[in-house]
Amino acid sequence: MTTIDSIDNGVNVQALLDAREALKSAPEAAQFTWRSTTRWENGVHTTSTVKDFAGLGAEQSHKAEHEFVADHPEVFAAEDHGITPIEYLLVGLGSCLTAGVASVAQNRGIQLRSVEATVEGVHDIRGILGADSDVRNGYNGIKVTFTIDADASKEDIEALVAQSQKRSAVFDALTNPTDVTVEVA
Amino acid sequence: MTTIDSIDNGVNVQALLDAREALKSAPEAAQFTWRSTTRWENGVHTTSTVKDFAGLGAEQSHKAEHEFVADHPEVFAAEDHGITPIEYLLVGLGSCLTAGVASVAQNRGIQLRSVEATVEGVHDIRGILGADSDVRNGYNGIKVTFTIDADASKEDIEALVAQSQKRSAVFDALTNPTDVTVEVA
Repeated sequence: MTTIDSIDNGVNVQALLDAREALKSAPEAAQFTWRSTTRWENGVHTTSTVKDFAGLGAEQSHKAEHEFVADHPEVFAAEDHGITPIEYLLVGLGSCLTAGVASVAQNRGIQLRSVEATVEGVHDIRGILGADSDVRNGYNGIKVTFTIDADASKEDIEALVAQSQKRSAVFDALTNPTDVTVEVA
Repeated sequence: MTTIDSIDNGVNVQALLDAREALKSAPEAAQFTWRSTTRWENGVHTTSTVKDFAGLGAEQSHKAEHEFVADHPEVFAAEDHGITPIEYLLVGLGSCLTAGVASVAQNRGIQLRSVEATVEGVHDIRGILGADSDVRNGYNGIKVTFTIDADASKEDIEALVAQSQKRSAVFDALTNPTDVTVEVA
């Protein structure tokens, strides 16, 4: 028999619930600043580096520095050294919702066996090319399709996904506007 | 003397201007679908894979498949195998605006020597933790700071950056809402 105690999706839910309580009375510690630095290589080829961030009232750091190459495909007359900038949004969305599914499943005592999310973004490139000023630059829409194998009914799995969506940082960042300021130093 | 013909930022502007003209009369070819697939590893650790996309009326593919690890830092009681999902948005934004600066500079005959963009996103994590329902899950704001060395006045450099912003797919995707549908297969 599977009991809630024996469920292990690898998420330390107790630590997250403790953090929630602790931050209720220490809102300043909940203010995080995430950072990335992009260096131009050549053409539309760039390298972005992520390592340090701030949070819990202090400077923090990932265990390692991570580098991300972006470029454009050859059909855009570029060299395709890496994925396009807008594809990074799909990576962020899929990984955020999937991490959320694992966390919610742990909290609800549902053992996951496998989770896969396919993310598709529809993009009319006439916007970025300036071919039609009525076409937006970004995605016209994004669709995420989950395939989940878990000890749970289809209904419970759908509820997991709905709750993950409700608490997802990236889902919110894409479906609602964020103020972005761009300056030259 | 530097002439426009001798400017080389590595961007084939003529190909992009030709594509703009060609797509004006072939809007169906301008419909792209970008894709990413996220696989759950354990806990909040995931691996996302990007290779194929559709556009110009056909299936297309990047030269290589690219994998992206996401996780959460140890201060989130996770194992920090990679950057967080929401940091991928900063990578996308920095790389998109920087590629735009290179393209616009090429079109305006401005030789770039170096471009660096520092991207910072302020995030109150009480939202995702459910500690305060008035706090949003995503970023409260994002700031991009460019440092650019180029054969141009400060004013011309600021105009470059402004034009890049105006045509940026990721800037639009973050500052304006996008419809995101999430389903279970």
